[in-house]
Amino acid sequence: MIKAHGYATHHSFSRLKLLDFEREEAGPRELEIDVLFCGVCHSDVHQAKNEWSNTVYPCMPGHEVVGKVRKVGPGVTRFKVGDVVGVGCMIDSCRVCAPCKAGDENYCEGPNSWLATYNGPMVSAEMAPTKKNMYGRDNTYGGYSDVLVVKEDFALRIPDALKPEVAAPILCAGVTTYSPMKHWKVAPGQKVGIIGFGGLGNLAAKIAKAMGAQVTVFTTTEEKLDEAKRLGVDGVKEDDKKALAALKLSFDFMLSTIPEKHNVNPFIALLKRDCTLTVVGALEPLSPVNNQEVAFHRKSVAGSLIGSLADTQEVLDFCAKHGIGPDIEIISIQEVNDAYKKIEDGDVRFRYVIDMASLKTESAT
Amino acid sequence: MIKAHGYATHHSFSRLKLLDFEREEAGPRELEIDVLFCGVCHSDVHQAKNEWSNTVYPCMPGHEVVGKVRKVGPGVTRFKVGDVVGVGCMIDSCRVCAPCKAGDENYCEGPNSWLATYNGPMVSAEMAPTKKNMYGRDNTYGGYSDVLVVKEDFALRIPDALKPEVAAPILCAGVTTYSPMKHWKVAPGQKVGIIGFGGLGNLAAKIAKAMGAQVTVFTTTEEKLDEAKRLGVDGVKEDDKKALAALKLSFDFMLSTIPEKHNVNPFIALLKRDCTLTVVGALEPLSPVNNQEVAFHRKSVAGSLIGSLADTQEVLDFCAKHGIGPDIEIISIQEVNDAYKKIEDGDVRFRYVIDMASLKTESAT
Repeated sequence: MIKAHGYATHHSFSRLKLLDFEREEAGPRELEIDVLFCGVCHSDVHQAKNEWSNTVYPCMPGHEVVGKVRKVGPGVTRFKVGDVVGVGCMIDSCRVCAPCKAGDENYCEGPNSWLATYNGPMVSAEMAPTKKNMYGRDNTYGGYSDVLVVKEDFALRIPDALKPEVAAPILCAGVTTYSPMKHWKVAPGQKVGIIGFGGLGNLAAKIAKAMGAQVTVFTTTEEKLDEAKRLGVDGVKEDDKKALAALKLSFDFMLSTIPEKHNVNPFIALLKRDCTLTVVGALEPLSPVNNQEVAFHRKSVAGSLIGSLADTQEVLDFCAKHGIGPDIEIISIQEVNDAYKKIEDGDVRFRYVIDMASLKTESAT
Repeated sequence: MIKAHGYATHHSFSRLKLLDFEREEAGPRELEIDVLFCGVCHSDVHQAKNEWSNTVYPCMPGHEVVGKVRKVGPGVTRFKVGDVVGVGCMIDSCRVCAPCKAGDENYCEGPNSWLATYNGPMVSAEMAPTKKNMYGRDNTYGGYSDVLVVKEDFALRIPDALKPEVAAPILCAGVTTYSPMKHWKVAPGQKVGIIGFGGLGNLAAKIAKAMGAQVTVFTTTEEKLDEAKRLGVDGVKEDDKKALAALKLSFDFMLSTIPEKHNVNPFIALLKRDCTLTVVGALEPLSPVNNQEVAFHRKSVAGSLIGSLADTQEVLDFCAKHGIGPDIEIISIQEVNDAYKKIEDGDVRFRYVIDMASLKTESAT
């Protein structure tokens, strides 16, 4: 067993703090990774606070992990010691269902769905049709830790052109926005709307622009309009009814990155006929969708969940090629509880990335 | 001017009764039609009672019209006196917008959208960006009348193999269900779910079956399960949780024909990954869609509105070819208020079709 340290919470109402624990050593086709950086995702906050009613405690979040390989199992062929690698939301999947075979591991239909980097299988034994846990683990500990063990199939190459701390948020925020834009075929010259302009929205706008789209971001925050200008995209206040009216029936694709229940109807009105608004931020019941708005121009409201391993590698390479990445703010692990508070308050213009070196001093004491 | 007679209502709360009125005579490229039969659509009830807050009174419903051509304008090329023709939901459109040019008149984006067979333009002058009415008519009188005048472009050929009274509901209920099944590419061997088993659902099930799909209908009414059996399709009670659980992730396409606000979440769960549930019955806010159900398998919830002229001709020919059509119950125009009551109570197993000959005796007195 490997002695490991990380930040975890034991209850929905308590703060994250140091936890000493053990991990299994790397198996034949697994890597042991020294974690360098770990992004803080809004879903980490939802999960730590049990807002989806499925949290297994202790909960050690972190699924935007970049680290350096320190040990490889004997069967590993794709990586070697010293490689900088990434781990996103998944560390395993059933591998035999139709989606897994089609390379859509993030839509795994195995009895326990995929194995999340933290919080264990997406479908628990209790909820599984088999009432069993094929992964043998109810809980998994994520990247808010010094070391991670992962199957080499679920590790991503971090391109040299990307700093590790910049690459981290691409592993979730990046692929979550890239994958649907690829799936719904965003193309040069198209008008793309990005709803919500936090961590996901910021990265989505950059990716859409790099895809050649004409991008408009929608935000509730006046100051973020300047941020849009800085990125070279249009910015619209969500409550600017006149601006919204002028944009009716004009978008080829819209992506909602708002991380909670929201009203999609004003944005559905902005879609062209036969076009789609995809919600990636919220995993809960939306406000009632007005089917008149949808039916009158044969529109669709869709959802998308992170992305496949192939999509994740693609978006890393895409960001490296186009010289884009998230705007980040480096924090220490000791600052993570304050960061959660700011994320909850919508008071974030950047993606927080934890420098895991900060853990060492504390865990050594 | 032509002296005409029909059944109309003057208020949301009053019954339909005889109205004497006048229609313009057929212009150069128009047809005058002796109405033989007119289907009763659930939307007639919504409209007569102003349930969409856009009814223009007097309101004379009827957009499932089959009649015999009695006069043609001098420029008419496609029809001759004596032809049996159909008129569906539209009698004109802007003809210059992108959807019209693409043959999607039902998604007309002209300032007043399309001109409805009754109740005038879909977008009134007040609601139009131009504040004008390009059709010059605020109101139109539908097929609950003895005579109709229509542009030949908006008249459909009724195949010889279809009885006129059977053809009538195909002009709205038929194309409303056929068009989305064609658009979302329903194919032989696919599993198709039809939600709601009234007038639309009955016809949808027959059409899907004729397309080669394996069809399941979902109904709240125990007795309608026998009806499903009679049609050779599977029937499931909507509240049969065990049956629904067994059908999870199994449908290639689902069509909701429920004509009012409803909860689509239990049905979204039945869709396969990457598949679509299309709502055609309700034109109002649905119950909140749970995006977790949608996103976890990249599903879509879409809407569709009737169908194009080309789709309407196609579904008429398709029904003739496959020997299918709606189950109908012929009523007299004098019975229409009672029929409305039964439709509102969900107490209908058939599509009501009015034999317009019944109007003659009354209008002659």
